[in-house]
Amino acid sequence: MAESMRGLHRTHRCGELSAANAGEMVTVMGWVQKNRNKGGLVFVDVRDRSGIIQVVFEEGKADADLIAKAAGLRSEYVVAVVGKVEKRSGAVNEHISTGEIEVIPSELRVLSESATPPFPIEENSRTKEELRLKYRYLDLRRPDLQRNLMMRSQVATLTRQFLADEGFLEIETPILGKSTPEGARDYLVPSRVHPGSFYGLPQSPQLFKQLLMCSGYDRYFQIAKCFRDEDLRADRQPEFTQIDMELSFVDVDDVIDVNERLLAKLFRDVLGVEVSLPIPRMTWQEAMDRYGSDKPDTRFGMELTDVTETVKDFDFVVFKGAVENGGSVRGINVKGQGGMPRKKIDKLVSFAKDYGAKGLAYIAIQEDGSFKSSFAKFMTEEQSKNLIDAMAGEAGDLLLFAADKNKVVWDVLGALRVELAKQLELLDKNEYSFVWITEFPLLEWSEEQNRYTAMHHPFTMPMEEDLQYLDSDPGRVRAKAYDITLNGNEIGGGSIRIFQNEIQEKMFEVLGFTKEQAHSQFGFLLDAFRYGVPPHAGLAYGLDRMVMLMAKEDSIRDVIAFPKIKDASCLMTDAPGEVDEKQLLELGLALAEEDTEVAEETEEG
Amino acid sequence: MAESMRGLHRTHRCGELSAANAGEMVTVMGWVQKNRNKGGLVFVDVRDRSGIIQVVFEEGKADADLIAKAAGLRSEYVVAVVGKVEKRSGAVNEHISTGEIEVIPSELRVLSESATPPFPIEENSRTKEELRLKYRYLDLRRPDLQRNLMMRSQVATLTRQFLADEGFLEIETPILGKSTPEGARDYLVPSRVHPGSFYGLPQSPQLFKQLLMCSGYDRYFQIAKCFRDEDLRADRQPEFTQIDMELSFVDVDDVIDVNERLLAKLFRDVLGVEVSLPIPRMTWQEAMDRYGSDKPDTRFGMELTDVTETVKDFDFVVFKGAVENGGSVRGINVKGQGGMPRKKIDKLVSFAKDYGAKGLAYIAIQEDGSFKSSFAKFMTEEQSKNLIDAMAGEAGDLLLFAADKNKVVWDVLGALRVELAKQLELLDKNEYSFVWITEFPLLEWSEEQNRYTAMHHPFTMPMEEDLQYLDSDPGRVRAKAYDITLNGNEIGGGSIRIFQNEIQEKMFEVLGFTKEQAHSQFGFLLDAFRYGVPPHAGLAYGLDRMVMLMAKEDSIRDVIAFPKIKDASCLMTDAPGEVDEKQLLELGLALAEEDTEVAEETEEG
Repeated sequence: MAESMRGLHRTHRCGELSAANAGEMVTVMGWVQKNRNKGGLVFVDVRDRSGIIQVVFEEGKADADLIAKAAGLRSEYVVAVVGKVEKRSGAVNEHISTGEIEVIPSELRVLSESATPPFPIEENSRTKEELRLKYRYLDLRRPDLQRNLMMRSQVATLTRQFLADEGFLEIETPILGKSTPEGARDYLVPSRVHPGSFYGLPQSPQLFKQLLMCSGYDRYFQIAKCFRDEDLRADRQPEFTQIDMELSFVDVDDVIDVNERLLAKLFRDVLGVEVSLPIPRMTWQEAMDRYGSDKPDTRFGMELTDVTETVKDFDFVVFKGAVENGGSVRGINVKGQGGMPRKKIDKLVSFAKDYGAKGLAYIAIQEDGSFKSSFAKFMTEEQSKNLIDAMAGEAGDLLLFAADKNKVVWDVLGALRVELAKQLELLDKNEYSFVWITEFPLLEWSEEQNRYTAMHHPFTMPMEEDLQYLDSDPGRVRAKAYDITLNGNEIGGGSIRIFQNEIQEKMFEVLGFTKEQAHSQFGFLLDAFRYGVPPHAGLAYGLDRMVMLMAKEDSIRDVIAFPKIKDASCLMTDAPGEVDEKQLLELGLALAEEDTEVAEETEEG
Repeated sequence: MAESMRGLHRTHRCGELSAANAGEMVTVMGWVQKNRNKGGLVFVDVRDRSGIIQVVFEEGKADADLIAKAAGLRSEYVVAVVGKVEKRSGAVNEHISTGEIEVIPSELRVLSESATPPFPIEENSRTKEELRLKYRYLDLRRPDLQRNLMMRSQVATLTRQFLADEGFLEIETPILGKSTPEGARDYLVPSRVHPGSFYGLPQSPQLFKQLLMCSGYDRYFQIAKCFRDEDLRADRQPEFTQIDMELSFVDVDDVIDVNERLLAKLFRDVLGVEVSLPIPRMTWQEAMDRYGSDKPDTRFGMELTDVTETVKDFDFVVFKGAVENGGSVRGINVKGQGGMPRKKIDKLVSFAKDYGAKGLAYIAIQEDGSFKSSFAKFMTEEQSKNLIDAMAGEAGDLLLFAADKNKVVWDVLGALRVELAKQLELLDKNEYSFVWITEFPLLEWSEEQNRYTAMHHPFTMPMEEDLQYLDSDPGRVRAKAYDITLNGNEIGGGSIRIFQNEIQEKMFEVLGFTKEQAHSQFGFLLDAFRYGVPPHAGLAYGLDRMVMLMAKEDSIRDVIAFPKIKDASCLMTDAPGEVDEKQLLELGLALAEEDTEVAEETEEG
């Protein structure tokens, strides 16, 4: 039976107590972490979000009833303890902040009892995630998850404070918006007042924040919920959070400057890590050439080398074919791995194939300077020497080569170098290596749609010096777009926006939009742009992923209080669920007839 | 043709300049507010969110091309001006902060041209709201709306800072949640992965914040978007914003304390208004008895007086009937309005009828002490004297009476006193009068459902001293609930929550829930409560309304960047809109057949 806390007032959180409080009468409240009965003494660990305090019930110091009551406590009971802080008589526990002290109780109340939890509440749970997510309210009691969510809160608070100090206004944009057919799938919300019509949940506040610039708000930010009805991958959620910003009367350097100071502040205040500014910048082209990725992990080397020129005359059809098709041959030098067993190399080949390679060629340089190679018979001694030199190969090195279209070569070697870095333990989780990637291609060719599509979005400004190629060679045009990457992850990205009607019209033309299509999709933005638009630019961070990296977690589910699983359902609440037919009727909707194929199968069975 | 801002860097916002900058070279950017050509001089007012600066193009100081360019500027063009700040040669404009200075330009660039706006961009627009909402991006340029949104941003920033300093964690709860059939209508979101299933958009994060307390987060807050698919009234939006909080190990006084300090800080920092603490508290009973409202406007008197005892023997059937039916007779004394013309009194009677009164009785005391009364013939001279005394009536006063069930009497007189205060201009918009309303009834009887319903929600804790009546006389039980009211508006409310299983079960029983019903609706919360729950409590503010009052606006649409109109549509984006049938198919949905009645009508036609 629960007791009331009437008349009691908590004086400290558990973890706030230290030797400095010795001698004080305190009142703490929290959950029973554990309860040990040891030779007449009862030790009770009381836990709250700040930490754990040990309460010692001892004959002579506490009366028998109190000791009996303490002995009856079970894990996760909620208790209030009034008592005196004393230095520990027993051994100091160096693992916890309150390890030098204990509380000698004069009063104990059981505010709430607990059934036995389905899994223990402890750091680094090994309980399988499905069960933890079903009982998320218990999982969330684990100190590691509590630290993560406290860190997330701190990141949000610091971000807001910083941006407010920099003159950004926090402005809320609608969640019930207009659905746009382009791009990723919107979540739809049927309207009751307008049956047959639907709102769309925003994939980002992009259009609204550009409108706010148009309206003169100058600097906008929002920590905004965004929604995408995509097939979920491990690292995706149907709803996710962006730190979203937009600035007027600025160019690339202004956006980068304010964001570098923001990042430096966050990493200093939250992690005690100094980010040295300015953060290095790398063009997209350089990032692809050196790292095979537009989000390069620069914590280690193993950079790509383009050996197309060196191998173009080799009598090796794989290399020849790639070069003839306008592709390239590139390699990475895995230092000191020349003795890698054949089996392990085969696994790398198979890994490369998953990324689209037809194969992976290698040269394994032995300690004696000789080498083994998958294409030894296709090169002369001189050719092999030249290739090894081009790769700066030394005794004991493993050289891996991919030959294909550039995109495939980059993808394969980019992924391979990260995979090898993991295997060889070259990645230091305590190192935070930021890089800005700039000068992205404005457009990418879509084989599927047989037209150019915008790499970022249709409002991204081309680089002034490339405007001349918009008609003649659109694929060559670079964008005033920038991503901020951290340890091989894109954590944010943005661009300077087009604010000139004539460039915007040209852009839609290149993207194959008719005027009508452009208007039906972006009409209100284009209308707004008729009435005086300031030059403007913006950036958005994926907050979930940023906090995940800061917390050194591998899954964004570990930094979201109530995440969904891959099928976009919530194991705790059972959302989504069925609703009354009456509700559907009000919305002018009906469940569709069952799928014909399914019906037929049933008939056959 | 738009010019580039390349090579320019804004040094100040327009309104940031003052006489202290005289002699400095500055670069400002903004919108042309107006452009006057006066005897060879061109005066251009440039506007940004901070204010307006006057730029003067003058022969001799600027070359002819520049002057001609300035003369060609039109309203809402976006310009960049480089120039020197000088003290005004002409008259000082005391209406603007930059009124003592002007900028003598050396460079002018037109960054963006503008078509003629459909309405002038100016303070206190008289353009009708529909047109303004269609062109919301232009409406948002108006200085008054900009001030409102800047104030809203400041309120959010200060609130977050204050709560973070008080140990509150900002934790995001899901937008895609589970739909619950009780209460207001949820917005539904069909699931593509689970066709036929739906998410519900949250009406508040209530269950999640209680779970977070259960999980040991101790103090939570969020500035949270909430959604209700209700028929909209003037003052409602389909999505609205709450400052939402929840605290563990607290009782009423703790919640009130932290919130009083929050309110005091907001009103001090934003408005320069000192809220004197503690804010007065009033029980619900007292508020109804004195003001006829649970959100009393205490900026003026005109309180209700219960005269049931005084009039119960009057030979007046209206009074008699009310008393016999268990109701009451109450009055208000409208000081100095004894001479109110009969026509005006009739209007008050009609107003009272709108609030459910069958009529309104009055005594108009003349300056000579005689009186006119609608029920003069039903009282003796002594009776009338007693009644006037009971009402503290003096020469020149107007006494108004309502007789009915208590609820009707309160509603009528409560509304009437506010209406009269408006008419008599007793309301000072610069006065901020806060009151806490406490000890609400836990339950209200629903005639419609023939059962008790929860006045706040089913998790509200009864007052300990009233627990004994839960079975025998549920209507008598008061709740540990509290509202914070300001000038006759409820701006926030909350309660101590039930954290004891046995009280929660009893509560569901009183509300007529079977165990199955309770479990199907609140299952995961009830499950969570089996594993150790701390005493907890919370409160939520309606941010839109709070900022509306602070900004002295009459509509929440004036403090929301992109509001919707009464039919829940957005005039700017045309949301909600139609979607492809293919999208519906993916969701397992179809538009319902046309309504039968409509179809029949069509046939007949």
